[in-house]
Amino acid sequence: MFPTYDVIVVGAGHAGCEAAVAAANMGSKVMLATMNMNTIAQMSCNPAMGGVAKGQIVREIDALCGYSGIVTDHTMVQFRMLNRSKGPAMWSPRAQSDRMQFAARWRSMLEANPNIDFWQEMIVGLVVKDGIVKGVRTGIGLEIPARSVVLTNGTFLNGVIHIGEKQFGGGRAGERAATGITEQLVELGFESGRMKTGTPPRIDGRSLDWDAMEVQPGDEVPGKFSYTDTPTPKRQLPCHIAYTSQEVHDILRTGFDRSPMFNGRIRGLGPRYCPSIEDKIDRFADRDRHQLFVEPEGWDTCEIYVNGFSSSLPEDVQYKALRQVRGFENMKMFRPGYAIEYDFFPPTQLKISLETHLVKNLFFAGQINGTTGYEEAGSQGLIAGINAHLAVQEEEPFVVRRSEGYIGVLIDDLVNKGTKEPYRMFTSRAEYRILLRQDNADLRLTPLAQKLGMAGSDERMQRVEAKNDAAEHIEKVLRDLSVEPGQVNGLLEEKGSSPINQKVKLHGILLRPQISMEDLRTAIPQVAELLSGYEQEFVDLAETNMKYEGYIRREQEMVDKMNRLEEVHLHEDFNYQQLASLSKEAREKLSRMKPRTIGQASRISGVSPADISVLLVHVGR
Amino acid sequence: MFPTYDVIVVGAGHAGCEAAVAAANMGSKVMLATMNMNTIAQMSCNPAMGGVAKGQIVREIDALCGYSGIVTDHTMVQFRMLNRSKGPAMWSPRAQSDRMQFAARWRSMLEANPNIDFWQEMIVGLVVKDGIVKGVRTGIGLEIPARSVVLTNGTFLNGVIHIGEKQFGGGRAGERAATGITEQLVELGFESGRMKTGTPPRIDGRSLDWDAMEVQPGDEVPGKFSYTDTPTPKRQLPCHIAYTSQEVHDILRTGFDRSPMFNGRIRGLGPRYCPSIEDKIDRFADRDRHQLFVEPEGWDTCEIYVNGFSSSLPEDVQYKALRQVRGFENMKMFRPGYAIEYDFFPPTQLKISLETHLVKNLFFAGQINGTTGYEEAGSQGLIAGINAHLAVQEEEPFVVRRSEGYIGVLIDDLVNKGTKEPYRMFTSRAEYRILLRQDNADLRLTPLAQKLGMAGSDERMQRVEAKNDAAEHIEKVLRDLSVEPGQVNGLLEEKGSSPINQKVKLHGILLRPQISMEDLRTAIPQVAELLSGYEQEFVDLAETNMKYEGYIRREQEMVDKMNRLEEVHLHEDFNYQQLASLSKEAREKLSRMKPRTIGQASRISGVSPADISVLLVHVGR
Ligand SMILES: Cc1cc2nc3c(=O)[nH]c(=O)nc-3n(C[C@H](O)[C@H](O)[C@H](O)COP(=O)(O)OP(=O)(O)OC[C@H]3O[C@@H](n4cnc5c(N)ncnc54)[C@H](O)[C@@H]3O)c2cc1C
Ligand SMILES: Cc1cc2nc3c(=O)[nH]c(=O)nc-3n(C[C@H](O)[C@H](O)[C@H](O)COP(=O)(O)OP(=O)(O)OC[C@H]3O[C@@H](n4cnc5c(N)ncnc54)[C@H](O)[C@@H]3O)c2cc1C
Repeated sequence: MFPTYDVIVVGAGHAGCEAAVAAANMGSKVMLATMNMNTIAQMSCNPAMGGVAKGQIVREIDALCGYSGIVTDHTMVQFRMLNRSKGPAMWSPRAQSDRMQFAARWRSMLEANPNIDFWQEMIVGLVVKDGIVKGVRTGIGLEIPARSVVLTNGTFLNGVIHIGEKQFGGGRAGERAATGITEQLVELGFESGRMKTGTPPRIDGRSLDWDAMEVQPGDEVPGKFSYTDTPTPKRQLPCHIAYTSQEVHDILRTGFDRSPMFNGRIRGLGPRYCPSIEDKIDRFADRDRHQLFVEPEGWDTCEIYVNGFSSSLPEDVQYKALRQVRGFENMKMFRPGYAIEYDFFPPTQLKISLETHLVKNLFFAGQINGTTGYEEAGSQGLIAGINAHLAVQEEEPFVVRRSEGYIGVLIDDLVNKGTKEPYRMFTSRAEYRILLRQDNADLRLTPLAQKLGMAGSDERMQRVEAKNDAAEHIEKVLRDLSVEPGQVNGLLEEKGSSPINQKVKLHGILLRPQISMEDLRTAIPQVAELLSGYEQEFVDLAETNMKYEGYIRREQEMVDKMNRLEEVHLHEDFNYQQLASLSKEAREKLSRMKPRTIGQASRISGVSPADISVLLVHVGR
Repeated sequence: MFPTYDVIVVGAGHAGCEAAVAAANMGSKVMLATMNMNTIAQMSCNPAMGGVAKGQIVREIDALCGYSGIVTDHTMVQFRMLNRSKGPAMWSPRAQSDRMQFAARWRSMLEANPNIDFWQEMIVGLVVKDGIVKGVRTGIGLEIPARSVVLTNGTFLNGVIHIGEKQFGGGRAGERAATGITEQLVELGFESGRMKTGTPPRIDGRSLDWDAMEVQPGDEVPGKFSYTDTPTPKRQLPCHIAYTSQEVHDILRTGFDRSPMFNGRIRGLGPRYCPSIEDKIDRFADRDRHQLFVEPEGWDTCEIYVNGFSSSLPEDVQYKALRQVRGFENMKMFRPGYAIEYDFFPPTQLKISLETHLVKNLFFAGQINGTTGYEEAGSQGLIAGINAHLAVQEEEPFVVRRSEGYIGVLIDDLVNKGTKEPYRMFTSRAEYRILLRQDNADLRLTPLAQKLGMAGSDERMQRVEAKNDAAEHIEKVLRDLSVEPGQVNGLLEEKGSSPINQKVKLHGILLRPQISMEDLRTAIPQVAELLSGYEQEFVDLAETNMKYEGYIRREQEMVDKMNRLEEVHLHEDFNYQQLASLSKEAREKLSRMKPRTIGQASRISGVSPADISVLLVHVGR
């Protein structure tokens, strides 16, 4: 019934969708097999994309020709650029989407791709021969043959849902868990573990007193994620902010003895940085209130997501506690929050390409690698999809370096360090933050997409080049152009910056912390004219390049130094056991994890700088 | 956590949604509890509403202020008035909807209703005390209290899906079956049975050769379902027609030994009139081809529904056979067809109000009553919702008579005759077909909705009155207005009707079979002027009233005669056992089924005209 596909992607969550698109846009024949075609790209938890560090990832996915940003742009109900008051390294786009439209848009973009076929059924196993994956087996017993397989099962593998003392199987509220795959992988020698995550109750917006909460509108001039010409929203929906209180906490505490988290029924570790409300009041017992973001689920629905109130306490406790929140006095629930426990595979079992060490041409991406979040999942899917395609073509894997993107940081961390609790991206995980900005993901990554031959990357590169040229040109003009005191002293005074008393270059003025490009545009007609020819984004890049030049240069130097190690390749067959001068732990870890470069080896936990020196000597550096 | 609801509706399929709306629009506080709020009003099988007899039902639902017609009008991708070449009794509207939009529109209309609350969870049991229902129990163990409950579980109760020799639990592809309710009802004394239905494969429209099929466009001037001011579609999608062949049949036959239908694995009876393809080639072995309607699932999707190819043969057989169909040579599947077996409750256990005999204030509606089809389900839901509301108010139940609507025929048949196989509506089931037209459902039923105090019925009645007035006025003018031979003989000759040689009334001309109102409008300026003030629908009514006056009068007389029996009420406590002159079977059936009127009694199978005479004598008629 089936041809032999180049790539089968199992699961159409965020990881699966990006994986399918990436492989397909590189030319692979892809089969996307998922339990239910009506839940393609369903947002399991809150209907939002981006946020601190995560927003950067979405822009990186977009720069690599993935679709998450495009889909979000088309379906957003609100956009905010977080951390606008901080430096550009911290700026982080975040959007709320219409949940239904988000899923529908993803599905239609997938369907529009002639290289992607679909199969709706549970996949229950892999076909593996001589250590190479050959396809998948479906619930009704079909075999679909393939040259590579990407597993993106999310929270579905042996998923168990917990609410208070009750527990039952399920991959997500109202959906079935998936069985069979973990068991087979364990038999093949994989190590699996349990993790957990949670979600807040969904409630009825018609029952809330909106006037009793703070309004949080979207940005006045909303931005977007994609570097392509997607629209920005014409209108937006507001979110609201509410607060828990001592009374709320007291009620929640009455459920602690029945909490699956506190009484040990849940064994899997949960995301420390996305804690449940019971976790928060337990760990921060001195805090007398916590913030709740009351977020709409879409344009036409009264369903509300109570961000910050994730819980697996008994439903009556959740209910009574929420009703104590100001504005929630008459709150009606659609369903209680719950926690879900699921299988994951410690990602140290993966190569940096996301291929498994144990089974050739088998890739893992998303939540099953121990991460949490749509963005983390989507970006892994993208990389796994690219590398599945390359593996089938017998080409070298594609790796985003830590200095090239948060995606690189994410995968490098996972593969080399593993993770005990659900891994979520933070800006603090990246060492080159000023390089990895949300505004320059295209400059960093689109050239790589083009080198890969990704469909659509040529058009994207034209814009990248225009953007670079614009920034260079603007910088050059400002470096050349001088202004007289009379032209700028008014502005400088107004901004509290010391006046000048002779001609100076505009570039020097711009470097003053009080002065922005916008100020120059307003005060100096030549600048206004210069900038009028460019998109705001191009102007912003020029400004950042100039204002942060020192920081950027310093980080770039660190990168260059580090890259020397990244460029020293280590062969897969390298026999570490023979190198007696390596520590025992390093020998063991290096043998198992087979790093692709000395740079990667240096980040494996247990491999010391002394071990790296040994390796460098050995390879003749 | 919950207030006591007036009505809890279990299940948000077509029956459940209409039940919730009806009770809410009469003023009840309603809780709609369903497994998954993302599948509200999901069309399990083909994304089409209406068709022969079913289209009439949708218009009746609309006339009674239900929403199925409105939702369809807003989401249709194609409209056709079937049987337009036949008499007006046979005209039947049918629309294809965008499956996703249909569900989304239903959900937002439900959410817009302030009397409807929602709960997302599986309901696993009822709370029954002293023979009266008091609420429901949910999967996590909550009790939701209520004064009445409407069960609309569709195909979910102990659902088992069959494909070839494989079988597994499920309520619909990719969804869980519901357990607990049947078992409890059986314990309470209910009889349950098994039925089955089937669905065709879903396939990839991108893989079909459309040019090799016949095109079936929508009507040039598309109509619609609702009598309110819903839109008609601005553009439409075509369907296509393909044909099976001997080769296709031969391949299908190779799977017969593995067919769950033929080898006895499926015990439940399936819909005779919606047979699977294997049924068709088995039962009509002489037919060398069958028609397949190749229908789009929506505006933006390549998913295709192969109407006419429902099957539970092994998937490889379905696949190979379909690939033999012209235009399907490169067909790719998304999932195979399957059959589903599920529990139903023989509807003779219901009162004519759809309340159960055994448990007070418990109502059943939809597929669990042994019917099949969205329209049949929706209309029962509407009636059950109305009667649940009335029961709570301790008011007399609402009954649509057989002479008032197909809905009356449906429920009267179910309750009095029961059904062994999935019951589907046909025009032949109605004895008063010329009265029960698709164009006059509003005249028949909206007055009843208004009497019930249904929200929105007052505005609707204004239009009903205007429509009636218009038809009467047009008729009166045509009866009064004479024409000279010179004014019409041209027309008559052109239409092959004999010329007149003296002045005659226009009414007489219109009665000629060759002459339509449109002809008169074109030929006679006074008619054109008269009609110009009215909507086409009003003009059509006038024409039908005049042209079919004789038939209408004759049926109305039959109705009036029959109604005499309908008006003789029988008390619920009537002791039939004491009436020795009744046949034994009649005594037993009447005692069990407690008909509300002698009319209803006369339709109970096993109750003879002689028994009816006995009853009439006894009640003094
Ligand atoms: C209850 C809950 C709460 C969460 N809370 C948070 C949170 O607070 N913060 C946060 O950042 N993230 C949270 N997440 C995680 C977030 O939803 C995931 O990180 C993200 O969706 C993972 O994407 P994925 O593509 O890996 O998997 P998923 O989005 O889970 O998609 C998996 C897909 O695979 C399909 N599938 C699975 N197994 C099979 C099979 N055997 N055969 C066929 N198809 C299969 C499924 O149907 C689904 O389409 C939560 C998730 C859940 C369920
Ligand atoms: C595979 C298949 C093939 C079909 N083929 C045809 C056909 O060829 N022709 C035809 O006319 N009709 C066909 N039908 C039937 C048509 O789909 C139904 O007649 C119609 O949908 C019945 O409407 P309903 O409201 O009674 O139930 P459904 O539409 O089935 O809705 C039931 C609802 O109840 C919910 N539910 C069920 N149990 C529970 C519970 N315990 N707790 C909470 N929620 C619950 C479900 O989630 C669902 O929302 C088919 C149905 C299926 C599944």
